[in-house]
Amino acid sequence: MMPSYYDPVSENAMPRFAGLATFMNIAPLQAGEAPDIVVVGAPFDGGTTMRPGARMGPRALREASHGLYPYHRVHRHKLTDRVSVADGGDLFVVATDIVQTLEHLTRQLRILGERSRILLMGGDHSVTLAPLRAARERYGQPLALIHLDAHSDLWDTMWGGPYNHATVFRRAVEEGLIDPAHSIQVGMRGSLEEAAEDQFGDELGIVQISTDQWLDQGNERVQEAIAQRVGQLPAYVSVDIDVVDPAFACGTGTPEAGGPSSYTVLSLLRLLPSLVVGADVVELAPDLDVTRNSALFAASVAYELLFLLAHGAGY
Amino acid sequence: MMPSYYDPVSENAMPRFAGLATFMNIAPLQAGEAPDIVVVGAPFDGGTTMRPGARMGPRALREASHGLYPYHRVHRHKLTDRVSVADGGDLFVVATDIVQTLEHLTRQLRILGERSRILLMGGDHSVTLAPLRAARERYGQPLALIHLDAHSDLWDTMWGGPYNHATVFRRAVEEGLIDPAHSIQVGMRGSLEEAAEDQFGDELGIVQISTDQWLDQGNERVQEAIAQRVGQLPAYVSVDIDVVDPAFACGTGTPEAGGPSSYTVLSLLRLLPSLVVGADVVELAPDLDVTRNSALFAASVAYELLFLLAHGAGY
Amino acid sequence: MMPSYYDPVSENAMPRFAGLATFMNIAPLQAGEAPDIVVVGAPFDGGTTMRPGARMGPRALREASHGLYPYHRVHRHKLTDRVSVADGGDLFVVATDIVQTLEHLTRQLRILGERSRILLMGGDHSVTLAPLRAARERYGQPLALIHLDAHSDLWDTMWGGPYNHATVFRRAVEEGLIDPAHSIQVGMRGSLEEAAEDQFGDELGIVQISTDQWLDQGNERVQEAIAQRVGQLPAYVSVDIDVVDPAFACGTGTPEAGGPSSYTVLSLLRLLPSLVVGADVVELAPDLDVTRNSALFAASVAYELLFLLAHGAGY
Amino acid sequence: MMPSYYDPVSENAMPRFAGLATFMNIAPLQAGEAPDIVVVGAPFDGGTTMRPGARMGPRALREASHGLYPYHRVHRHKLTDRVSVADGGDLFVVATDIVQTLEHLTRQLRILGERSRILLMGGDHSVTLAPLRAARERYGQPLALIHLDAHSDLWDTMWGGPYNHATVFRRAVEEGLIDPAHSIQVGMRGSLEEAAEDQFGDELGIVQISTDQWLDQGNERVQEAIAQRVGQLPAYVSVDIDVVDPAFACGTGTPEAGGPSSYTVLSLLRLLPSLVVGADVVELAPDLDVTRNSALFAASVAYELLFLLAHGAGY
Amino acid sequence: MMPSYYDPVSENAMPRFAGLATFMNIAPLQAGEAPDIVVVGAPFDGGTTMRPGARMGPRALREASHGLYPYHRVHRHKLTDRVSVADGGDLFVVATDIVQTLEHLTRQLRILGERSRILLMGGDHSVTLAPLRAARERYGQPLALIHLDAHSDLWDTMWGGPYNHATVFRRAVEEGLIDPAHSIQVGMRGSLEEAAEDQFGDELGIVQISTDQWLDQGNERVQEAIAQRVGQLPAYVSVDIDVVDPAFACGTGTPEAGGPSSYTVLSLLRLLPSLVVGADVVELAPDLDVTRNSALFAASVAYELLFLLAHGAGY
Amino acid sequence: MMPSYYDPVSENAMPRFAGLATFMNIAPLQAGEAPDIVVVGAPFDGGTTMRPGARMGPRALREASHGLYPYHRVHRHKLTDRVSVADGGDLFVVATDIVQTLEHLTRQLRILGERSRILLMGGDHSVTLAPLRAARERYGQPLALIHLDAHSDLWDTMWGGPYNHATVFRRAVEEGLIDPAHSIQVGMRGSLEEAAEDQFGDELGIVQISTDQWLDQGNERVQEAIAQRVGQLPAYVSVDIDVVDPAFACGTGTPEAGGPSSYTVLSLLRLLPSLVVGADVVELAPDLDVTRNSALFAASVAYELLFLLAHGAGY
Repeated sequence: MMPSYYDPVSENAMPRFAGLATFMNIAPLQAGEAPDIVVVGAPFDGGTTMRPGARMGPRALREASHGLYPYHRVHRHKLTDRVSVADGGDLFVVATDIVQTLEHLTRQLRILGERSRILLMGGDHSVTLAPLRAARERYGQPLALIHLDAHSDLWDTMWGGPYNHATVFRRAVEEGLIDPAHSIQVGMRGSLEEAAEDQFGDELGIVQISTDQWLDQGNERVQEAIAQRVGQLPAYVSVDIDVVDPAFACGTGTPEAGGPSSYTVLSLLRLLPSLVVGADVVELAPDLDVTRNSALFAASVAYELLFLLAHGAGY
Repeated sequence: MMPSYYDPVSENAMPRFAGLATFMNIAPLQAGEAPDIVVVGAPFDGGTTMRPGARMGPRALREASHGLYPYHRVHRHKLTDRVSVADGGDLFVVATDIVQTLEHLTRQLRILGERSRILLMGGDHSVTLAPLRAARERYGQPLALIHLDAHSDLWDTMWGGPYNHATVFRRAVEEGLIDPAHSIQVGMRGSLEEAAEDQFGDELGIVQISTDQWLDQGNERVQEAIAQRVGQLPAYVSVDIDVVDPAFACGTGTPEAGGPSSYTVLSLLRLLPSLVVGADVVELAPDLDVTRNSALFAASVAYELLFLLAHGAGY
Repeated sequence: MMPSYYDPVSENAMPRFAGLATFMNIAPLQAGEAPDIVVVGAPFDGGTTMRPGARMGPRALREASHGLYPYHRVHRHKLTDRVSVADGGDLFVVATDIVQTLEHLTRQLRILGERSRILLMGGDHSVTLAPLRAARERYGQPLALIHLDAHSDLWDTMWGGPYNHATVFRRAVEEGLIDPAHSIQVGMRGSLEEAAEDQFGDELGIVQISTDQWLDQGNERVQEAIAQRVGQLPAYVSVDIDVVDPAFACGTGTPEAGGPSSYTVLSLLRLLPSLVVGADVVELAPDLDVTRNSALFAASVAYELLFLLAHGAGY
Repeated sequence: MMPSYYDPVSENAMPRFAGLATFMNIAPLQAGEAPDIVVVGAPFDGGTTMRPGARMGPRALREASHGLYPYHRVHRHKLTDRVSVADGGDLFVVATDIVQTLEHLTRQLRILGERSRILLMGGDHSVTLAPLRAARERYGQPLALIHLDAHSDLWDTMWGGPYNHATVFRRAVEEGLIDPAHSIQVGMRGSLEEAAEDQFGDELGIVQISTDQWLDQGNERVQEAIAQRVGQLPAYVSVDIDVVDPAFACGTGTPEAGGPSSYTVLSLLRLLPSLVVGADVVELAPDLDVTRNSALFAASVAYELLFLLAHGAGY
Repeated sequence: MMPSYYDPVSENAMPRFAGLATFMNIAPLQAGEAPDIVVVGAPFDGGTTMRPGARMGPRALREASHGLYPYHRVHRHKLTDRVSVADGGDLFVVATDIVQTLEHLTRQLRILGERSRILLMGGDHSVTLAPLRAARERYGQPLALIHLDAHSDLWDTMWGGPYNHATVFRRAVEEGLIDPAHSIQVGMRGSLEEAAEDQFGDELGIVQISTDQWLDQGNERVQEAIAQRVGQLPAYVSVDIDVVDPAFACGTGTPEAGGPSSYTVLSLLRLLPSLVVGADVVELAPDLDVTRNSALFAASVAYELLFLLAHGAGY
Repeated sequence: MMPSYYDPVSENAMPRFAGLATFMNIAPLQAGEAPDIVVVGAPFDGGTTMRPGARMGPRALREASHGLYPYHRVHRHKLTDRVSVADGGDLFVVATDIVQTLEHLTRQLRILGERSRILLMGGDHSVTLAPLRAARERYGQPLALIHLDAHSDLWDTMWGGPYNHATVFRRAVEEGLIDPAHSIQVGMRGSLEEAAEDQFGDELGIVQISTDQWLDQGNERVQEAIAQRVGQLPAYVSVDIDVVDPAFACGTGTPEAGGPSSYTVLSLLRLLPSLVVGADVVELAPDLDVTRNSALFAASVAYELLFLLAHGAGY
């Protein structure tokens, strides 16, 4: 079979670490093209409440993805055998204004989403509100949320402001973007400011599986809980890389010690159901990523998300 | 409930990463105050036999602790609901003289210990002799030792000298500070200089659980062994951060490959008994901690130790 | 002479790297005290348009300042012989909102400024608007600005927004905070987006001395130009650490190659006139400062600024 | 027992981190000596297809080995009680020519191998061809291969060239150096360029155990599979440090997320059979090893390999 | 004036650090376009005799160039006012074969050079042979060489091989690519293997100005020497970033202490004559560039070279 | 001429970065050999009052020296044409005891010094007392001291102790090891604890040239001052690497901003007189040396010192 426009450049034609960096060395999105999936960046970290730097995430994800190849050893097929994928570059953001940024992102994602599914590369977690808004519109119903993170991001406000990376999923519930009854958060751990914070999930009707529960029960039971929860809704998967122990991803703004391994997280992602219509990986802060493991982990997460989007392509 | 003097500064009043750094942003110890627990540093590494740097440990622990909040998700209460805690700064040491330093530390800890329980932040492991001496005096009996470490620190001398981080617990036995029959060391692994070194525990009557045994048996059985060993004695918990695999804490002077994860270590600490009257976390060498994971792990250990001290407050 | 409350802790009483970190180990500001000078941090980087991280600047400045001692070898007196100085910690900011932050900062600086001169530690350069607003009020007239920086920060807007680190001094002119006819910018270099940018100084009536001119003419002639320009106005000194070549300070968000050495910059600061009523050092981004030279340089700049504020204390 | 020429320098005679660095501070190989085992480096990375740097591996391995002591806690004997070991320094290589280098290495290893077993420190994985060629000659038969790696290194050519770190074991089969029917590869994971790559093992008759299978089955069953596969053939063990998750070894050119822990890998090595006649540890790229964990892990692997070579010494 | 296809993306349309990374965010080269200047990478370091890593240079140069803007403050015009420039990505190389790589590079540069001038981003210095070969053909005469470097790169062979980064300019003389009588090398310093090495320039007829001479005489006299030497020949400028002191560029394989500052080097480049028909910047090894100053310096050099190429565009 | 035992290994026989690391790849000292010069390490940092780590200095100096070749471009001869040089490894020290260490060092240097001149690699500056004691004995008179450093190291005591890196030269005067009237200190700068500290030189009769004076006057006048001061006495040169600006050497425990460049320091060393009978380079702390520039600078200083020792060989 001849390589198509959308195939990643073959290693025999160009070393993987060379050339203009796109995600996995796939083609940049060209005007007039409508691939099945578009990978885009949201280079914004104005919603960060601790260490910043996630604005540099998308370029680092692209760079780290040069070690990823199109054939998936577990799913046993090549990404581009089933779908076309292009790298749409980064979306326009205003580094100093979160309200404007969310509007810009939503507008751009709405347009891109007319023809393609989106894999979004953050940016801090506040950017997730934009693809959820765009998807809500497109699908005409709230989505099921599958959320992997050390934190539930369900705060109401911080310093009086409604928009930041710690409030994003409460906003999503309030705006009707996700259906709490079909949503699940996996990986919560670490200390809390108030006892109330431990009740946020119950309060909003979202199921949570803590890191302790996850590692006690194992991936298969967690996967069953997810599948049951999601049901037949179109699903959105959001992965904050701090879900993994900081040994595997030190390059993130709010690391929590005592997390699962990258093996556990990536294996769980391979088990997720086939109704995924949108996805993101967020909170990679490359300036803190001295080992580069965080970018590699984030790119590996993005790789799994791409296959999930490909599998759900018929939805 | 109004926040008291001892409450950590709320995130809504000041970003967690801002202000003068104290442990968890709790109040600095003021003259005339006697909180239940005092956190203090021993900025000394003159007992190090390999890579130095642990003298910078206390400040790095404070900085890393800004991601820790007062409510404990597993213990299900807020630290400051039960006890008052203040940061006592660092104790005076003489960087170039270990004998003088141990005397200075003991003297200062004796005074502080009259009114408060102490959480000591090292410094290399040689500093542990000082709180043990002060506690022995205060409690009028040898203490039970719960010691997490990759090394047993039971050497007799090194280069002819009796005081350094590899001999500290043999000195503690000899000085009658700890009761070997109620003491236990968990996490030993790695290569040894002589076969004799493998017999040090037996020789002195201290039980050891190697990393292999720990990971084979699991935390629950190890916790039972600890509880049984400690019995009803007042207990001292000493955690050398090299107990964890260097993937989770590269910032330490004598790392040993092949250790447990931070999840395993932190989970074990949450299971420990309620008779803890003193504790320390040592051997954080921040200049080696390029990922900052070591400081975060050490601060997370200190956080668990604070709750242990709080639970044992009625002893 | 007995050490007073305001003397830095002597090295003989405590190692310089130990204890709770304040700037130069001076006393934390206590309620009811009104020292001549207060050092405070503005931990905010929401005005950054490139790499973020300056919000972590104040704590890093404090840590790096432990190598600075109170006696000035060139000025030949001890800081605390002439003035009292305390570390006021950090001011409250809202990480996600620049407009609110500038209001919070101005309000707090107005109060502090009633009794003390302020040395402000940034934060990104957008925070400088706050002390200028407070000083304008206090002195009842626009100030003379002495501004060391690789960039003139005279843009009108960026992405439609008026407040960020590239527009701060145009805002200061527009708001009448500084008198362009008595203001001078030193150190400009590097590439520009438009030819117009090269005319911003002329347009607003502010004199600029480029890095090329500075290194051609030497510090003495530049100091004369500054003195002549400032005249008898109360002066505010603002130092962006990117004024120095990145070899001396890589830990900053918008480094420009081809700058002067730290020797040149520090020597110039020692020559500045004695009418300085306020000062800041900004744009230290510690997560980028792998060598720690940037924090050391920024602390050394702050040290020089403290002496300038002390010298001008009689104004 | 008096220390012999071959004993590592005692810690009581010299700090472990001091003196001219040899592996584990054992004696440098002297002319006219024929120790049982020689440790040598192959400082070559001209076969690397991604990030280079493994040429600096041998010196970094020596430096990191200063924390390894001669008594093995699990095997319960001292290395030098059974065998004599010396550090033979590095072999001559031509940094810019892989064909010449393989010839130089083979020639030198043939000579060294006449009297001593070899532990080779890479260098990238392409260097393994040389000890296999030398061993094939010496033993007069193909060897059993035990290969730990995230990648199978069974490509045919890359950019038209037959020799590089991705083709080494296909060459070894073609040249009759290893017997595929007695060879086994453990740890494969990650994405592939083509489906065909997933069949390379079957095609050549080499059994593969993926990381998924390894972690599902556990070390004991994997060890049985290895023992059964190897049978009574003389065995060669080749460990690419990227077999471990990059959290434990970020200093390597082609890291793959989602791997086993160092505990798992080192424990497996301790279970290997006693017919090992040659071994190597490769792909340590120290310039990427910011945590130094990779060098420590590689040295710990080398330590286990030394004991395997010692145990098989009677073969 | 409307922005054309070739204008860098305006900062107001996209943050400079965002989007697919090209050099200075200029347009990627499109099929059928023939801009005046093409920037291309040669991601090869198989000619390195010390620390490798320069193969990763081109991507790092692109990333670092996001701080460079099109208007040149000294030359007082915008790059794209005079010429069109596009980023041609990277040329195909064979990481494991230097002879093949030089052929591939020469072939590709010959084609590109038919329509555009080339700014080449290395790679190690061995790649310079390719653009010299292509330019020799195109101009029908040997070129004048202006070579800035700490080393003269005039060795005959290394380990028996003719092609590597230490022999490139002897090869260029032998192949008639450069005219020694019109060539000059600036910046030589550091220790030498043999006295003979100090005579290589004289032997081949190339003038050398050592770092000592350069810093004694100053840029103006060096520029005169260069201009006089070059005469009216078409000139090629080759800059090895190790010409600058490692304080300004630690990310290179063979650093030499005691060099000039980046200010000195960049200022000299701004003085060069207007007959430059080809140029390169080489030996950036990003994995060693922990400060990122080296990439910034290399990008700043590339920026100056672009203007030189633009000025000479009428030749 | 055939290469002798003492010649560094030729680059054509072994890559410079390969093999067992000795200083400049010269031969290790063999029993029964008495070369003209011996390079030895003193791996001790127990005299450090700020950041430790200089105990790891000697190995880092050896590693960094692989870029240094035997022919000196300015002195115009090969080191080994005039003298024989060997690497004596490291001297025995007791990491935890400074008094014992100084005795051990003095004893060992006395023996080595009977036959060879010594170039000592620190370690912190406290170790310098040992070679001064040994040289005093050997030469039967106090030596002239040429001391390059940012600090004068003339404190009386620190925390009550007489021996540490800040008191070494006062001890040397008191013990009659150096003749103050023929001694000179160059490079002093930075802040002081007390005014008294600024008088230490005058008090003891040692001339000081500050960094300001040095950079004002230039190397030639400083060299004259040194030559005049030293007169005809045998001279000892001690270089603390913090004499240079931290941009050129961040890997040291007490860096001072605002120093000279490496070019200035190395050029001054090349001008020193020919009566040098002993020398050291100290205070390299490799764990802080993220750029590796400090080790390269220290090795370059050691290289210059070797030539000074060679030139003075006839004394």
